[in-house]
Amino acid sequence: MARVYNFSAGPSMMPEKALKRAAEEMLECGSSGQSVMEMSHRSKEYEAIITGCEALVRELLNVPDNYKVLFLQGGASTQFAMVPLNLMKTGKADYVITGQWAKKAYQEALKFGDAKAAASSADKTFTYIPELTPDMFRADADYVHVCYNNTIYGTHYNTFPNVGDLPLVADMSSCIMSEPVDVSKFAMIYAGAQKNIGPAGLTVVIIREDLIGGAKENVPTMLNYQIHADNGSMYNTPPTYSIYMCKLILEWLKDDMGGVAQMHKVNLHKAKMFYDYLDSSSMFKGTVVPKDRSIMNIPFVTGNEEMDKLFVKESKEAGFWNLKGHRTVGGMRASIYNAMPVEGVEKLIDFMKDFEKRNG
Amino acid sequence: MARVYNFSAGPSMMPEKALKRAAEEMLECGSSGQSVMEMSHRSKEYEAIITGCEALVRELLNVPDNYKVLFLQGGASTQFAMVPLNLMKTGKADYVITGQWAKKAYQEALKFGDAKAAASSADKTFTYIPELTPDMFRADADYVHVCYNNTIYGTHYNTFPNVGDLPLVADMSSCIMSEPVDVSKFAMIYAGAQKNIGPAGLTVVIIREDLIGGAKENVPTMLNYQIHADNGSMYNTPPTYSIYMCKLILEWLKDDMGGVAQMHKVNLHKAKMFYDYLDSSSMFKGTVVPKDRSIMNIPFVTGNEEMDKLFVKESKEAGFWNLKGHRTVGGMRASIYNAMPVEGVEKLIDFMKDFEKRNG
Repeated sequence: MARVYNFSAGPSMMPEKALKRAAEEMLECGSSGQSVMEMSHRSKEYEAIITGCEALVRELLNVPDNYKVLFLQGGASTQFAMVPLNLMKTGKADYVITGQWAKKAYQEALKFGDAKAAASSADKTFTYIPELTPDMFRADADYVHVCYNNTIYGTHYNTFPNVGDLPLVADMSSCIMSEPVDVSKFAMIYAGAQKNIGPAGLTVVIIREDLIGGAKENVPTMLNYQIHADNGSMYNTPPTYSIYMCKLILEWLKDDMGGVAQMHKVNLHKAKMFYDYLDSSSMFKGTVVPKDRSIMNIPFVTGNEEMDKLFVKESKEAGFWNLKGHRTVGGMRASIYNAMPVEGVEKLIDFMKDFEKRNG
Repeated sequence: MARVYNFSAGPSMMPEKALKRAAEEMLECGSSGQSVMEMSHRSKEYEAIITGCEALVRELLNVPDNYKVLFLQGGASTQFAMVPLNLMKTGKADYVITGQWAKKAYQEALKFGDAKAAASSADKTFTYIPELTPDMFRADADYVHVCYNNTIYGTHYNTFPNVGDLPLVADMSSCIMSEPVDVSKFAMIYAGAQKNIGPAGLTVVIIREDLIGGAKENVPTMLNYQIHADNGSMYNTPPTYSIYMCKLILEWLKDDMGGVAQMHKVNLHKAKMFYDYLDSSSMFKGTVVPKDRSIMNIPFVTGNEEMDKLFVKESKEAGFWNLKGHRTVGGMRASIYNAMPVEGVEKLIDFMKDFEKRNG
């Protein structure tokens, strides 16, 4: 069959160009006589791949020189532990609870120190981002942790989190490289790759150098940023092929999409089309307050569970996959990451209009 | 150029059949309309892949029903921490030091409890495996840890480690699926996939169920076997594509090579050819005592550093890659994992004979 439009929350669609290149190079990358998967991570062939990938991350996000870019494993869930284990130097950290993942990060930090839920949007099922002011946080907290885009609930910090002078740590798993960010305003950014920049099994960490080195002696070696920073992400064998795929996707982002600022314009366009339709529809409704809407993940409902089910079934048959909402939320969700083409969104809206006509 | 014979210690050669299939399915796997890399890990399409992979591990290694098979991230280095964090219930564990990796496992365990180096072959630069008897270990140790095949030094437990009734934990990163093992004799087996069974970024853990559940409350969630066992390796997004590649490689092992016992015969044949030549050569010498030789990793030297360098250079030009020994050891090393064809070894021996003639 033809390739489908895949609205999965992640892993999700990848640029066809990157996949084609990966297919072409599967038995031999360049003139190396081998697949990237077969390359020794210490070979000069592979060195070119990992340094090329890091250079692209730095260029596309304009990462300042005093930040390290690390390629790690274990997903954001492992970062939930690494952040407090490395950054909780005095033992206090404040968390903003904007969804399930933000809460998991907070709960994990409780294992290692005095973590505080400083703000939350749990009162309205995480359908908004709480307004933040510096006085909400402890002045002596080691950092404030936010989840910058909430995959499940479809919210996003459209106003920069105001945490005053406190170091700001952001989980950007579902929005990294979808919009320009001023990295210098963050102490650390991390992201599981499997939504916007690569396959599952790679985590990108961007961390200000002066924050590295705070892990206690009994922290597992592999959970110590210092170890990975000192060894250029090669303390042990890194997830070599996933880093290669990340490089191919970032090349597409730079060369074909024109970089992050241009990509952002396209993402805004795709999201606006979708939200405009939701706001005009008498059947489908968005679940998030307009000011905090994500341009990556768009949850919506009909208000009728049977109708939701019918929609998920019929949309899949029409080639729009994975529109079912998260198991804890219900309804529908369209994840429209960088690699979702404009026409994928246009066609989905056409399908929804037709569905509405037939079932309205 | 043509594909080279890649003697890297890992990542290393993969079966061409698996790579070809991966290339063919890169844009669409089956009739899924998507790449495996794009599949939601919660989709039924992906479910078939991960359960298929687990079934193959179980079948090929004849894993008893009371063992869990887990697909994790972070390499053997992460297991060095997870093993003591989960299995050190009374706080004591004994380690056998047979090389750099075995030592790293021991040093990591020291962070978490009373780890003891019960035996070692450091006195002779790890060129042998120490003879083990149960009285060498503490009767109340929670487990004994061994590195079953030592990648750097080229040694292997050709006699089963005699640890009496103590639970035996084995790092099999460089020998898993290369030989039949009686899983029931082990408490736990773990292996980074990147040598014999997959790409870097996947770690396979085979653990007896009654050993799961011993992690303390302050152990990072992602380092707790219980979490992964309870969630079928899907607590968070697993390294989906690496698991798919593992499945393709295990299918090749089963269907094309006839399973682990047959593969072992081929591996013994390849290694015997190589050692027979080394033992007959007046230029090249193996570095390991014959009884403890590995059939996966074969270190050898000429006794002359300049000659070693010349050999590494000329062998690469002739299409035999990555024969340089580990940076901490020097000399040469041929890693001949499952995917190295018999003819790769034959041709290398021919090249060595010719080199010896020209330079002897």
